[in-house]
Amino acid sequence: MPASNDPHAPRRIPADVVLLSAGPGDLELLTLKAVRALQAAEVLLLDELVDPGIVELAPHARVVRVGKRGGCRSTPQAFICRLMRRYALQGLRVVRVKGGDALLFGRAGEEIAFLRAAGVPVTIINGVSAAFAAAAALGVSLTHREHCHGISFVTAHTADHGEPDWAALCATGTTLAIYMGMRRIGSLARSLLRHLPSDTPAAVVLAASQPGERRLLTTLRELAAEAATLASGPPGVILVGAALGEAVPVALPVDPSRHAARLA
Amino acid sequence: MPASNDPHAPRRIPADVVLLSAGPGDLELLTLKAVRALQAAEVLLLDELVDPGIVELAPHARVVRVGKRGGCRSTPQAFICRLMRRYALQGLRVVRVKGGDALLFGRAGEEIAFLRAAGVPVTIINGVSAAFAAAAALGVSLTHREHCHGISFVTAHTADHGEPDWAALCATGTTLAIYMGMRRIGSLARSLLRHLPSDTPAAVVLAASQPGERRLLTTLRELAAEAATLASGPPGVILVGAALGEAVPVALPVDPSRHAARLA
Repeated sequence: MPASNDPHAPRRIPADVVLLSAGPGDLELLTLKAVRALQAAEVLLLDELVDPGIVELAPHARVVRVGKRGGCRSTPQAFICRLMRRYALQGLRVVRVKGGDALLFGRAGEEIAFLRAAGVPVTIINGVSAAFAAAAALGVSLTHREHCHGISFVTAHTADHGEPDWAALCATGTTLAIYMGMRRIGSLARSLLRHLPSDTPAAVVLAASQPGERRLLTTLRELAAEAATLASGPPGVILVGAALGEAVPVALPVDPSRHAARLA
Repeated sequence: MPASNDPHAPRRIPADVVLLSAGPGDLELLTLKAVRALQAAEVLLLDELVDPGIVELAPHARVVRVGKRGGCRSTPQAFICRLMRRYALQGLRVVRVKGGDALLFGRAGEEIAFLRAAGVPVTIINGVSAAFAAAAALGVSLTHREHCHGISFVTAHTADHGEPDWAALCATGTTLAIYMGMRRIGSLARSLLRHLPSDTPAAVVLAASQPGERRLLTTLRELAAEAATLASGPPGVILVGAALGEAVPVALPVDPSRHAARLA
């Protein structure tokens, strides 16, 4: 833990900024390390996708909401960076809460570079990324060794508004976990159909690990057909590859709502 | 949580088997959900790579060590599966502890399929995979958006003892996180040099998040040159790609041992 978590330690200026991974949604999936950092937090910068209940774990923190969401009104990244710097230079223990794992997507790279340039120390606390929770919801390994030797995590669009190289990704033979792809799921499925058999297993998990979790287990062909329904829904993770063929929803016993084979 | 975690609940037969992700090593990176499952465990099946201190979190559990490690004497997978089934059929709360996240490598797919066929319910608890902890140790995002749009996690060898399709993986432009590759790091680096520039940033993190954590930040060319030294060392994660170029070891302030730019 950073030294700044000791309440009796002299206040250090600048204070550390903690980039904290809040996981996929279920607060039970926070790590012990994350919980301790929240308890010591004096300023909490909160992403929109994080369960608002997390603030109860940070009783001493001023909460600043800095949500960002594709296509919606959002807090500019530069403003978030300046906020972190400002509070850290006041010696306040800043915890920047990010959904999933802070180091997978989510622009941690830019925040680390900004804080580093400002001389502000950064501590990173890892967490569970959404695709792992999606696989848990489906009761399936992301990398069943009979089907693949790995997994690729990509966003549906690149920083320059292009698309990933789907041909190369499909050629790897890895499972694909596609983040931030729900709005363009139709064109995405059609792109993948150019490189993969139409009966390739595919799944969509919305709100993985959360009470509103919904799962669709299907094929790439059907995914394209049902795209219109899915694109208007909440954020989710798209999983594509033979390993998904191992998912047998009826064998997920704990939560009866998990028996649905269709999005439900 | 599974119903079986309530000590006053009638014993259900077969009991659930919990596949529990122990994370990269630091027990502070266990999730709250994992800690609760450990507290309720009656039988703990423990991987060799998991911190033995984890047994203290499972005070009611009989501990069975079922380590597996490339090239060493190990417990056959079929035996581990039968053990889980036997205890579950006795109504005992079995927790199968796996390093990293249970659903990334580590043969969870086979264990789920076996238990499913035996009618034994499976619950999965996610965790932090080693590559995320490696990135945290290096103070770097795995997917800095100026450099890439994703990351591919692969093992250095496939189930049929072949190699991943390095040409396709390199063509994706994603960061590469290579697990179980230390012993063949020389041939691996040479394979990658066929498809990537020799000055491509590369890093190795051994024992990420653990007290003995060691980091090497280098290039693909140097990785090949230093392979002999690395191959005889402990397990580690190899990271390759432009995003690693953002790692600036001197800017990792919390732990002075993290200032080393070389493996140290």
